Amino acid sequence: MSISETETARRPRREGGGRRAGPSGRNPVPQLPRRKLKRLFPPMAIVSADEIEAIHHASLRVLSEIGMDFTLPEARDMLKKAGASVQGDRVRFDPAMIESLIASAPAEFTFHARNPENDLPVGGANIAFGTVASPPNSSDMDNGRRTGNHADYRNFLRLAQYFNCIGFTAGYPVEPIDIHASVRHLEALRDMVLLTDKPFHAYSLGAERIRDAIEIARIARGISQEQLEREPSLFTIINTNSPLKLDTPMLRGIIEMASRNQIVCVTPFTLAGAMAPVTIAGALVEQNAEALAGIAFAQLVRKGSPVIYGGFTSNVDMKSGAPAFGTPEYMKATIVGGQLARRYKIPFRTSNTCAANTVDAQAAYESVFSLWGLTMGGGNLIMHGAGWLEGGLVASFEKFVLDCDLIQMVSEFLQPLETGEDALGVEAIREVGPGGHFFGAQHTLARYTTAFYAPIISDWRNNQQWLAAGKPEAWQKANAVWKQALADYQEPPIDAAVRDELNAFVERRKAEGGAPTDF
Amino acid sequence: MSISETETARRPRREGGGRRAGPSGRNPVPQLPRRKLKRLFPPMAIVSADEIEAIHHASLRVLSEIGMDFTLPEARDMLKKAGASVQGDRVRFDPAMIESLIASAPAEFTFHARNPENDLPVGGANIAFGTVASPPNSSDMDNGRRTGNHADYRNFLRLAQYFNCIGFTAGYPVEPIDIHASVRHLEALRDMVLLTDKPFHAYSLGAERIRDAIEIARIARGISQEQLEREPSLFTIINTNSPLKLDTPMLRGIIEMASRNQIVCVTPFTLAGAMAPVTIAGALVEQNAEALAGIAFAQLVRKGSPVIYGGFTSNVDMKSGAPAFGTPEYMKATIVGGQLARRYKIPFRTSNTCAANTVDAQAAYESVFSLWGLTMGGGNLIMHGAGWLEGGLVASFEKFVLDCDLIQMVSEFLQPLETGEDALGVEAIREVGPGGHFFGAQHTLARYTTAFYAPIISDWRNNQQWLAAGKPEAWQKANAVWKQALADYQEPPIDAAVRDELNAFVERRKAEGGAPTDF
Repeated sequence: MSISETETARRPRREGGGRRAGPSGRNPVPQLPRRKLKRLFPPMAIVSADEIEAIHHASLRVLSEIGMDFTLPEARDMLKKAGASVQGDRVRFDPAMIESLIASAPAEFTFHARNPENDLPVGGANIAFGTVASPPNSSDMDNGRRTGNHADYRNFLRLAQYFNCIGFTAGYPVEPIDIHASVRHLEALRDMVLLTDKPFHAYSLGAERIRDAIEIARIARGISQEQLEREPSLFTIINTNSPLKLDTPMLRGIIEMASRNQIVCVTPFTLAGAMAPVTIAGALVEQNAEALAGIAFAQLVRKGSPVIYGGFTSNVDMKSGAPAFGTPEYMKATIVGGQLARRYKIPFRTSNTCAANTVDAQAAYESVFSLWGLTMGGGNLIMHGAGWLEGGLVASFEKFVLDCDLIQMVSEFLQPLETGEDALGVEAIREVGPGGHFFGAQHTLARYTTAFYAPIISDWRNNQQWLAAGKPEAWQKANAVWKQALADYQEPPIDAAVRDELNAFVERRKAEGGAPTDF
Repeated sequence: MSISETETARRPRREGGGRRAGPSGRNPVPQLPRRKLKRLFPPMAIVSADEIEAIHHASLRVLSEIGMDFTLPEARDMLKKAGASVQGDRVRFDPAMIESLIASAPAEFTFHARNPENDLPVGGANIAFGTVASPPNSSDMDNGRRTGNHADYRNFLRLAQYFNCIGFTAGYPVEPIDIHASVRHLEALRDMVLLTDKPFHAYSLGAERIRDAIEIARIARGISQEQLEREPSLFTIINTNSPLKLDTPMLRGIIEMASRNQIVCVTPFTLAGAMAPVTIAGALVEQNAEALAGIAFAQLVRKGSPVIYGGFTSNVDMKSGAPAFGTPEYMKATIVGGQLARRYKIPFRTSNTCAANTVDAQAAYESVFSLWGLTMGGGNLIMHGAGWLEGGLVASFEKFVLDCDLIQMVSEFLQPLETGEDALGVEAIREVGPGGHFFGAQHTLARYTTAFYAPIISDWRNNQQWLAAGKPEAWQKANAVWKQALADYQEPPIDAAVRDELNAFVERRKAEGGAPTDF
């Protein structure tokens, strides 16, 4: 059952030439080339157009009859001038006002990176996977779970750069808690620019931070303010404070980002049974109301600015209140979320989630169920693509690698099936004939090195070989791979002038004390 | 984050009343009720109708130009009389002959069980999951891997009966190798009838065995020969000897089963790069040619007899020749297999597969990728639904339970989303309002016990609780559950006369020496 030249058999397909051994002197981790992924099939629908209208109208009723709290006076003033009814913090929207505002949101746009090869088309059939974002803890199987820190943060960025399947950094892959909060965004964003050349995210934690982030995004690309405003180069996640509240730092984030034509992704955190109704349809009504309100506000700030409809509806364990992820309910909420976003012709953000405590079967099945829902449901920008564990409380190095393998499998699944005359293989079947085998056939020899996806993690050895190797489990392979990836990692090149300007900006802002921490 | 009456919160939805504690005195394993599953959405297509025609015509070319070996003279004679060209073992089919023969295959039929509640509708949007079938080894995490044996065989049947998500026994869940081959089918099928009341499979290992199986299926249902011929009550998998060969025991199986109007599922085992071309399209051409030839022969034996189109195309690891399962290639082959089966309006059989050596993350992701492909691709009868490990070399007790949880999640995913006025939850959102929470809302209290799927395996405890519990992994929960299920298992009732007739038949046939073992 062997084939000659087996050493080359697992080599992945590469676009544009080979790759040398990395700094570690070993062969790099086999992986797929960088790809701009597209769904070639229509996204899935599990509710009818009438049901989508029912959810739509219910959420417009929520916004007009119940309303939403906007805690920033400036935002309320803008909304009042635009025709909303304002009483205290509460803002109520006429359905026509929402419909008219969201109509200006673009269906597709380009998200620019400092390396133009990493620009991401957002919306339509495009799909891109980002890193995990925002866990307060990190973990690996050697050293266990610990509080997020700068060293782990930087290592996750290196993995984000290393793995071709990662399209963007979705936030801090782990919170670098050992950097003081006043300057954390400056240090963290500088790392993001220097250690990766992929597009990135900044947190909306008040006006100063997001202004700094926009300036860093501009410097990183070496472009003018005008070009930055033409070319979205930064995105921010706006989490509503569900139910029905948009707080001051988030509203300031929308104002700063949308006014500069940068990307605002409004993502309500609507866990059914906790911050949202106990029914998935009800949680989606709330998600939709909050997302539409945030998107409408962004369009009020700047008509036509790039926005993303974020879906993050899942359920809780009603026994404990713990969030559940990668569940059947999560899949359904994701798919209907996609249907809603497409109704509004707005790009759709989803996530690769799980609630598992360790990189076991549960972590894998919850993640693949998530990927199933978001791939079939038409997700465009996928947050938490790699590394998310424990419902987002932990960024795991092993899970990061496992997820890269899962994303690569989705990527392969999304490639068109070759069905030309040679691929149909009638001549190969004729050559081999009844009772023969294909290992030595010309057709096989011509294609075998690149015929199939070569997984990063999967162990396909037979039982005897596997026993002899010490019965390794998937997480052990993942453990070896992230170390190899870090050893092989190379910092992406950057123009010296850009680097100098970036450092000068960060140092100046640090000297000024960074940003207030009492937001 | 807790809710009153939490003890009831994880209770699964049940149709038709509660369930008492089982013989173990403990509460039974929480599980979903028995369901006849249906896809409510259209199956997925990843190639165009033109590409399906290209595969179809290529496989007709294979059958007319290259042909297929039929090793049974009687079968060749029948085919020759029907117009095929026969030289030696080789049979070549005019495309029109294939098209005309397969046209009589029914699109849907009922597969009857001895308990009519377990009758399965086959074809169309129906989907049913069976047990793992045919591994030579079994394993559990306490006692490890061992040769298949009668005791394990019986325990797997008990699990097949216990878990509502298992619709049928797909063969011997593990080979009971300690029963002599001459009488194994008699003992094994008797167990199948007595320990379960779900529909079942018999192996086509020559005429005697399959005749015995048909008689056992008739006795089990307590029906006449005539009723049996009206009501398919047994199925057999016909594996072609790929490439392009149908051997004598399989051909005898088709003749015996189809002539009695029992279910013939023709499943080529076309591993791309080994028994089939190294391209997925080429492997599908071969699969299709072999499946059509087998189905055509079954229709020649008896026009209108129930048949199933089996897809089992996957790839091999080109480095080692090891079969790979649950890969992106497997997903694509499954989905295109469904497109082909629907082109012929014949029910489609697929499998829940993995190549993992243990119940780790790999086992889970390969299985969920398989489930993704087969659920979206329109699989009707799902073989190896629960328990398959190591590419089918092992039936694992822990994997059985894990798979039941995965199947239940698919089952929940397939349930329609409730979108009525109360489910949309506008009044609940009004009651709670901005900044509130839904735990105590009337809407929540009225629904929380049955709101969400309660998984068998998933551990949603927080990190502290999970550490305190000893850091259990998913397989450990699965290990506890199969033991609990076996302790709670109850033999399904059977009419005493039927039992007596069954025992008398088995004992008589055993006394006669069973069946020859030199097939």
